[in-house]
Amino acid sequence: MLYNAIAGRNRARLEALSDGLFAFAMTLLVLDLRVPSAFGVRTDGDLLHALAHLVPRFVPYLLSFMTLSIFWIGQQTQLNGLTRTDRNLTWLHLAFLLPVTLVPFSTSLLAEFLDSRVALGIYWLNLFLLGATLYAGWRYARHADLVKAELDEATRDSFDRRIIIAQSLYAVGATLALVSTYLAIAAIILIQLNYVFAPRIRWLYRL
Amino acid sequence: MLYNAIAGRNRARLEALSDGLFAFAMTLLVLDLRVPSAFGVRTDGDLLHALAHLVPRFVPYLLSFMTLSIFWIGQQTQLNGLTRTDRNLTWLHLAFLLPVTLVPFSTSLLAEFLDSRVALGIYWLNLFLLGATLYAGWRYARHADLVKAELDEATRDSFDRRIIIAQSLYAVGATLALVSTYLAIAAIILIQLNYVFAPRIRWLYRL
Amino acid sequence: MLYNAIAGRNRARLEALSDGLFAFAMTLLVLDLRVPSAFGVRTDGDLLHALAHLVPRFVPYLLSFMTLSIFWIGQQTQLNGLTRTDRNLTWLHLAFLLPVTLVPFSTSLLAEFLDSRVALGIYWLNLFLLGATLYAGWRYARHADLVKAELDEATRDSFDRRIIIAQSLYAVGATLALVSTYLAIAAIILIQLNYVFAPRIRWLYRL
Amino acid sequence: MLYNAIAGRNRARLEALSDGLFAFAMTLLVLDLRVPSAFGVRTDGDLLHALAHLVPRFVPYLLSFMTLSIFWIGQQTQLNGLTRTDRNLTWLHLAFLLPVTLVPFSTSLLAEFLDSRVALGIYWLNLFLLGATLYAGWRYARHADLVKAELDEATRDSFDRRIIIAQSLYAVGATLALVSTYLAIAAIILIQLNYVFAPRIRWLYRL
Repeated sequence: MLYNAIAGRNRARLEALSDGLFAFAMTLLVLDLRVPSAFGVRTDGDLLHALAHLVPRFVPYLLSFMTLSIFWIGQQTQLNGLTRTDRNLTWLHLAFLLPVTLVPFSTSLLAEFLDSRVALGIYWLNLFLLGATLYAGWRYARHADLVKAELDEATRDSFDRRIIIAQSLYAVGATLALVSTYLAIAAIILIQLNYVFAPRIRWLYRL
Repeated sequence: MLYNAIAGRNRARLEALSDGLFAFAMTLLVLDLRVPSAFGVRTDGDLLHALAHLVPRFVPYLLSFMTLSIFWIGQQTQLNGLTRTDRNLTWLHLAFLLPVTLVPFSTSLLAEFLDSRVALGIYWLNLFLLGATLYAGWRYARHADLVKAELDEATRDSFDRRIIIAQSLYAVGATLALVSTYLAIAAIILIQLNYVFAPRIRWLYRL
Repeated sequence: MLYNAIAGRNRARLEALSDGLFAFAMTLLVLDLRVPSAFGVRTDGDLLHALAHLVPRFVPYLLSFMTLSIFWIGQQTQLNGLTRTDRNLTWLHLAFLLPVTLVPFSTSLLAEFLDSRVALGIYWLNLFLLGATLYAGWRYARHADLVKAELDEATRDSFDRRIIIAQSLYAVGATLALVSTYLAIAAIILIQLNYVFAPRIRWLYRL
Repeated sequence: MLYNAIAGRNRARLEALSDGLFAFAMTLLVLDLRVPSAFGVRTDGDLLHALAHLVPRFVPYLLSFMTLSIFWIGQQTQLNGLTRTDRNLTWLHLAFLLPVTLVPFSTSLLAEFLDSRVALGIYWLNLFLLGATLYAGWRYARHADLVKAELDEATRDSFDRRIIIAQSLYAVGATLALVSTYLAIAAIILIQLNYVFAPRIRWLYRL
């Protein structure tokens, strides 16, 4: 297995592939905001009316831009913490990039069916796959001794906890869809905003 | 908050993500130039006629290519001026990338409704969000002491002024839409050309 | 021929172009998963029913994501093994990138016509072109003495064998379409999974 | 003008933006190869028949992939020959990237109207803009003393000649459309193949 001992060890290229993929997925989200056709739109009032129909699509768009940003930072932080990559880690990160490419699809589905539990369930599944593959990458890196020595056990554990807490919160948020999908979407947005702004609710991170 | 102390500090990846996103947004603009269908086009005269209808779409396309180029250089210059990035700065730049992904949408809207003040207003709002987020990034970098020591106060102030003057000009340009949207578009194009060619109207930069 | 002696020797840019192209091809695959229109979908049951029609499209999508990942790692490993690139090698890798851009097309064709031998034949042809151009790059690199000294002859030969064995397996897999295209697709998926998980069937690599 | 003295001097980012843009334009070409709809295609014979209609689209696709590859290598070679970039050179290369984004459009137009002199003229104009902006970049770099000292005058001149000869050949090739557009396309393809394979017609490069 000489090939496999050498293959897939270039971290710079894994990062470049990831950055390209995230950049593309983030821009694809916007393709869902279809410009109203000039046909039947005569006045500025008509145009405002047509644009008003796009507003509900903006919410999943913003949510998914935040989601992709959060997981992009998460992957970056994980890779920054490693001394090197190996073939297995590269494959785990390729597995992580798969649900990244699915985000435009699940976002579009949610935008089209804001009040459907099925659409919300698929969106949650996408969030879960992002977290699960990133977690698998980190667990493997710890197991295979790829983590930088400067990160002590407490810090390493904090990486684990970070993903587990986030995924628990997503799961709770998604469960609110049993009451109302709008409530569940609002909860997931609040969770994401929390990760963006990292407010001072310190006890949560001390768990 | 161990995770947040480590997260999002990789400038190379922020740059790579940004370059991918700008490259994609610039190329997406062109998707708006739909090739006429062969159906109903029999002679070269017919084709010229069909292409003539695309000409008004070329103007917003060129305008937005210039806009994205100007802000790409603006972001590059800001990041070049920093010793390092941190998590907050990364998030401010992600907030800057959000309106970048919106440029193909607002350009397409303007191309479809060249004489609509609503479309022009949304295009201006996009320009404003680009400037506001880039300005926030710079103000934060100064505040958090991320700027290279070799940039003295006068240079740092010139970065601030640059954005504020450009945004003031855009706002004045957009206001011309009260007279005519074509006039407003022409004004914004002239402002962008000024930034591309940086002519010798030195007094403007001495303000 | 001064120009040609200097041209195309930048490995970093070849890698960046490749990463961008792979990232884009991987994300394009997902565009084939069209979100069902809200029109005619009223209940969650309707939506599940509509999504069930998308399931057969998921199989070629996953297959092609694996395929692109395998060839991305293959190209990365080849380039990692070289001391430098030259103009000819760059052109051979550009020839390799051509079938990479075709993967979304042949995947989409296979997804649309899962039971067609023509669609499967074109998909196999795409796999063959990926392997043949990557092989040509490697043979040329050995011939032109671009390979790192630290890779001994046995290792170099293992790179050759790797591609030849994979291509032989693809050809056998594709031939199964004479019995059933589903059988052929299953065989190719199993071959790809073997390369992803690199199981302990060691005798195969000792050939 | 403090800002302009600092702005746009990062060559790595110009290269990254260019690679992303080229990668995207190359992959967009393939979107023109629309997969036939399953509707009305029942047998493999039907599918072969439907695919046969796509063959004429393959020719412009391959031509443009070669074109983009040639100009990508051309830009890479120019940037490799420079010690540094400055703001003006960056803008000239952004002007070069504009016609790069237009290649998918002019390719699509040519594929749709293979026998139209207007479509061929626009394709030629695109080639001309690519060459003219790349030439302007090189002339400016020589003028502003950005070229590496190791490139002597003869080598620098060979860069000039390279573009001028290629553009002269394109112009002659395009003129053949007065006889037949197919002849003109064949001529341009032959010119591109010459640049890809750089055959031993040495006298041409000695001009």
